[in-house]
Parts: sequence; C-alpha cells; structure tokens
Amino acid sequence: MHILETISANTGLPVTDHAFDRILAALAATTDPWKVVDLADQPFNLTVEAVKVLADEGLVRFEDGQVHLTESGTELLRSRGVVPPKSFRCPACAGTGLSLTDLEDAFSTFRSIAEGRPEPTDDFDQGVLTPESAMRRAALMLQNGDVTGKRIAILGDDDLMTLAIGLAGKPKEIVTFEIDDRYVRYIREHAERLNIPATVLTFDLRKKLPDELFARFDTFLTDPPENYAGLFLFLERGFGLLKSGDGHAGYFGMTLTESSLRKWSRLQQWLGDEHDIVLTHLIYEHSEYENWGFLLDSIRNDVEPYRHFPKVNWYRSSLYRVETLSDFQPENISFEGEDIYSDEERLVYSKKAQRTPNGERR
Amino acid sequence: MHILETISANTGLPVTDHAFDRILAALAATTDPWKVVDLADQPFNLTVEAVKVLADEGLVRFEDGQVHLTESGTELLRSRGVVPPKSFRCPACAGTGLSLTDLEDAFSTFRSIAEGRPEPTDDFDQGVLTPESAMRRAALMLQNGDVTGKRIAILGDDDLMTLAIGLAGKPKEIVTFEIDDRYVRYIREHAERLNIPATVLTFDLRKKLPDELFARFDTFLTDPPENYAGLFLFLERGFGLLKSGDGHAGYFGMTLTESSLRKWSRLQQWLGDEHDIVLTHLIYEHSEYENWGFLLDSIRNDVEPYRHFPKVNWYRSSLYRVETLSDFQPENISFEGEDIYSDEERLVYSKKAQRTPNGERR
Repeated sequence: MHILETISANTGLPVTDHAFDRILAALAATTDPWKVVDLADQPFNLTVEAVKVLADEGLVRFEDGQVHLTESGTELLRSRGVVPPKSFRCPACAGTGLSLTDLEDAFSTFRSIAEGRPEPTDDFDQGVLTPESAMRRAALMLQNGDVTGKRIAILGDDDLMTLAIGLAGKPKEIVTFEIDDRYVRYIREHAERLNIPATVLTFDLRKKLPDELFARFDTFLTDPPENYAGLFLFLERGFGLLKSGDGHAGYFGMTLTESSLRKWSRLQQWLGDEHDIVLTHLIYEHSEYENWGFLLDSIRNDVEPYRHFPKVNWYRSSLYRVETLSDFQPENISFEGEDIYSDEERLVYSKKAQRTPNGERR
Repeated sequence: MHILETISANTGLPVTDHAFDRILAALAATTDPWKVVDLADQPFNLTVEAVKVLADEGLVRFEDGQVHLTESGTELLRSRGVVPPKSFRCPACAGTGLSLTDLEDAFSTFRSIAEGRPEPTDDFDQGVLTPESAMRRAALMLQNGDVTGKRIAILGDDDLMTLAIGLAGKPKEIVTFEIDDRYVRYIREHAERLNIPATVLTFDLRKKLPDELFARFDTFLTDPPENYAGLFLFLERGFGLLKSGDGHAGYFGMTLTESSLRKWSRLQQWLGDEHDIVLTHLIYEHSEYENWGFLLDSIRNDVEPYRHFPKVNWYRSSLYRVETLSDFQPENISFEGEDIYSDEERLVYSKKAQRTPNGERR
C-alpha cells in the first residue's frame, strides 16, 4: 500500500500493516490528536506522519485542531477490519492495580510538594509524572519489599521520587543523582524538612561511578531517556549501583511513544544476555505525565492538529520492574562523550537529532 | 548458614539468602501455611521444606494447621532485617488493573456456566481459574485488540476461556485444543447454545500441527504446565499457530509456585532468542485459581500444616502477554515421546517426578 511506503520514507521508520492499523483504530476511537498518539502505541513521529499522509490522501480532515475520519477514511477502516479499541482500565487505580488508600497521608503531603516544584525544561529531557503516578510507583516498590530498610538509588529525579518514596516508606538511605540544580535544592530542602535520609548528588552519569557508590544499593529507579544510547547508559548505571547477587530490583519507565516494540525487545534481550536479570513486572501504561510547557517547541510543527497544546494528559509510560538473579555482577563502564538524548524514534527527533546526528547507536 | 544448606540439600534447589528472607517475610505476615506459599513467591517445595527445617530448628511451631514464628524465629527475622510485605493491591480489580463493569452480562452468564463444569483431575494437570480471573483475561485480550474479528487458538481449556472470550467479545473464530473429553463436550455444548464460533479439537500437542492449523491464528492463549519440557512445548505450539510477521499475540500464565525466577528468565530469553517476540505486559499475580480436590493427594505429606486443605485461594499466576515482531516465523516441531508434566520446581514433583525421572530437561 503506497500510504505505508510514504510514511516510512518520510520518517525513516519501518511501518507494518499492523502499526498502520493501530493508528487507524486510534483515529476511530477519538478525534483528539494527542489521544490518537496515546492509543496508537507507535513512535510519535510515525503517528504524526501517518495523520499527515492520511490528510493528504483525503482519509482524514482537520477541524478546530481535531482529526476526523472522512467517509473514505471510514471505508478504509471497514475494508481493513479495523475497529476502535475498548478500554477496561480499572477507574479506581487507573489500570495500575495499585491502590493509594493506605498511603493517603503520604500522598496528600507529596501532592502539595509537587505543586511547588520547578518547571521542567528541555535542557535535561524533563517531563514529570503526575503525583498519583509517582506515588503509585512508590507503592509498587514498597509492595515488593524494595524500600523498607533498603538502600535506594534514583537516577534523575524531576519526578521527586526521593520524596514520594521517603514519605510512603522507610528506606535506609536514598541517594539521588540529579543534574538540574533547581531540583537538587528543592529535593534537599524538603527531604531535610521531612527527615528523609536522602543525599542528592550532582553527577554526570556518563562518568564511572566512584567506589563509594558502585555496587552498594538494593534498588534503583529511573525514567531514562529513550534513545538507545541514553536508555542503555541509564540502565547500565542503575545496574552498576546494585549489589551483586540475587534479589535486587530495578524500576524504570518505557513508553511506546518514544520507543518502538523493537526497542523494547532489544532491551529485554539485553537484560538477560548482558546481565543476569529477569523481568518480574511490566505494568502497561502504569505512569501518566503532566503536559510540559515546552512540548510544542520541541516537536515538528508541520501537522496542524499538533500545533495545539493538549487538553488532556496523553503521554504515558509502562513500568518495568526487573530483579537480579544469582549470577548478577554490576559493572562500571565509562560512557564519556556519548550523546545521550536523541534517536529517530524520539519525540524530539525532528529537531534535536538533526543537531547531533553522531549520537545514534543502533 | 546451615539452614539454607539443609533446605537446598533436601530439595535439590538452590536457596539464596534472598529466597530465604522472602519465606521469612511471608511467615511474618501470616500463619496460614498456604498464604505463606503465596506470599513467598518461591517454588512450592522450597517453601514447604523451609517451613519444615525452620520447625526442626525451633524457629517456627505448628498449631492447628497454622505456622507460628517462635521467639527465636522472630529474633532471626529481626537480625536479618526482614519485615512482612505490605500490599497495595487495588480491591476493585484485585490488583489486575482490569475492570469487569462493562462486561457484567457476559460475566454473569459465564459464572453460572463455570459452576457446572466438570471437576478438575490431575490426569491432565488441571486446576482452574476463578471465573473473575478468566473474565479478566478475556478483558485484557479485548482491550489489546486481540479478540474482535480475530482467529484465536486456545491450548488446553479447563478454564473455559473459549466461553469467556466468546461471551465477552466477537472473535472471528476460536479453535480450542483440549484433551479431556468431558471438557470437550462441555465447551462444545455451551458454545453451540451461545452461538460462539468455536471448534473444539482433541489433539495431542506433542504431535506436529496439521497444515490447516499451522500459522493460521492471530492470538493464542494457554496456561501451560510449568516444567521446562511442558512449558516450551505449549508455547512453541502456541507460536506455531500464529501467522508470521508482527502484531500477533500470545497470552499465558506463569507462577512462582511451580517456577523459579531462573525459569522465568530462561523463558524470557528464549522468546527473543528463538523467536522474534517481545513482552508487552507482565501482570504480576493477575490470575487466581480455585482450590482443587486432588491437591493434598498430589503433594508431599510430610509437613503437618500442608496436610490441611486450604481455606483460601492461594495459587496465583502472573499473566504474560507477548507480541510477535516483524521477523517472526512460526515453526512446526514434533515433541513426540516427551514427558511434559514434571520437574523439580513443580508442585507435584515429590510424587510424579519420581515416577518419571527421564522427563527432565534442564
């Protein structure tokens, strides 16, 4: 089908019939262009390019920032047997399976702290979890015994997970790596006030870990950048922080908006091939993010509906929990000189990746 | 620690400090011996042997079929820093993230059908999902677009998933492989009555698939036996049923009661190494099973608390959803002559595996 070839040629991404059908199904479910991205579960640029090509072909039309299937678009769906997805997401827990009822006090304190946080900036690839999602990550960690009495490392903390975890549970120690001074100060100040045993360090994760941090932790948590180089850097660093042997845990978010399932697959293979690590939980769309002010400036602006700021939260990540097995050994590798923020599946690719084409590593 | 060595020597299973601590934490949370197995997330024989050795050492005592930590047991936990696990499982969806509210009619019909089903027997490794869990599996499949208009294969169906899926959604066709004639008849009869487009076949999955079934399906579902040979047979057969290329889905349950995380890890590696398959969902303890009448006859009977029939459902499995990627190719292999039901991590090992020692394949 020539539409698929056009989309593929324009994005440099492979486009299968299945991927195309997922985008069509999303268009059948909603006219909100951002919800289309959310439901399609395809890399952002692929979905946006598909919307553009479908409009060029008269299969969708744009109106007031919304995307409507035309009559021929509806006919295309019918001929391909595409139907809109149904949702059975539990409203009580937003589909996560995790209840915050027993964490009400911690959550209430956390929410008010989160309201005062510094604004995210695209200098550091920031974009923050809703307070509910942050607290639900803490709940999962607690439930798995990865908090109480444990040494926890957090790699990048614009989500304020240091405070969410410290409010929800009783870790032995939290060490947080954060590059943005505003967040360093904000987390330190509140951790001190709340007697959370946290140390916040400004540290470039591309450098090797110092001896006092290497292989010293029970648990790590990160929301990594999702280009290949950044993803593997953050995770390699996370694993480098964990003690050797079994029973240590890593938590991280992965989207299908900035990563393809191919990337997920490579990641999953790498966990077992390079390390002795098993996946214990993969909670689909566990985490929801707040819309960030610099969104429209960071993405392509050639498709009309995506020039309007989103009215709903639409960016979600799935939560991975992985656990070390008995042969696990942390490593301490240098990544100095790597571009850790771009590749062609990323939201920001159309601008940033072209600035730094050498950073790719497939 | 000599306790760990004793447990390991008596079970033939590796026992790490972490595994031992998980069992201790479970003992701190409940005195119900079956809940201990549920919470510990270790192979059944490992947990039961640990309870036995702890009793021999005076660290727990048995009373009225319950397991109580003694004073020295409590002291051991304190010295090891072990605390009971907390649960944040959402009560509305039993921690699955999936609501049945929009499936009420289907669920109500299904529940009454499930009440009349034939009794499970250990001739075929049966043990059935609660109706809630069966319907929640159907809900997840529907939500992922793996039901409507799709060809679905079900490998083994004492759970009556043919009927749950047929009631909840509109598949194009369901083909169900079932070896127990009683279930074959029961499913056929209700499928016909309910106009569910299902074909139920009696077929030994060790044999190669006939041409009219090989590589013809969009989705498969199975609750495989969890010894290595049975697990890989059922999954290999499931993948052999799927069409080539991307976007086809497999669903299967895996426990931590009959499988170790090491087995999970090997399985996860195999998915990507042998096939081009990615894990998209891993819902921890999604599925709950009803207690089965032959339980006490099928397990070891040398540890007093485990001679009492359980009062609660305690056997759970996590639900894997995997998806094929673009290079996926189904295969059609013969497994004739394999013992597909035993290995040392299984519930039934202490009896069955000794009957058929040749079946092991590590």
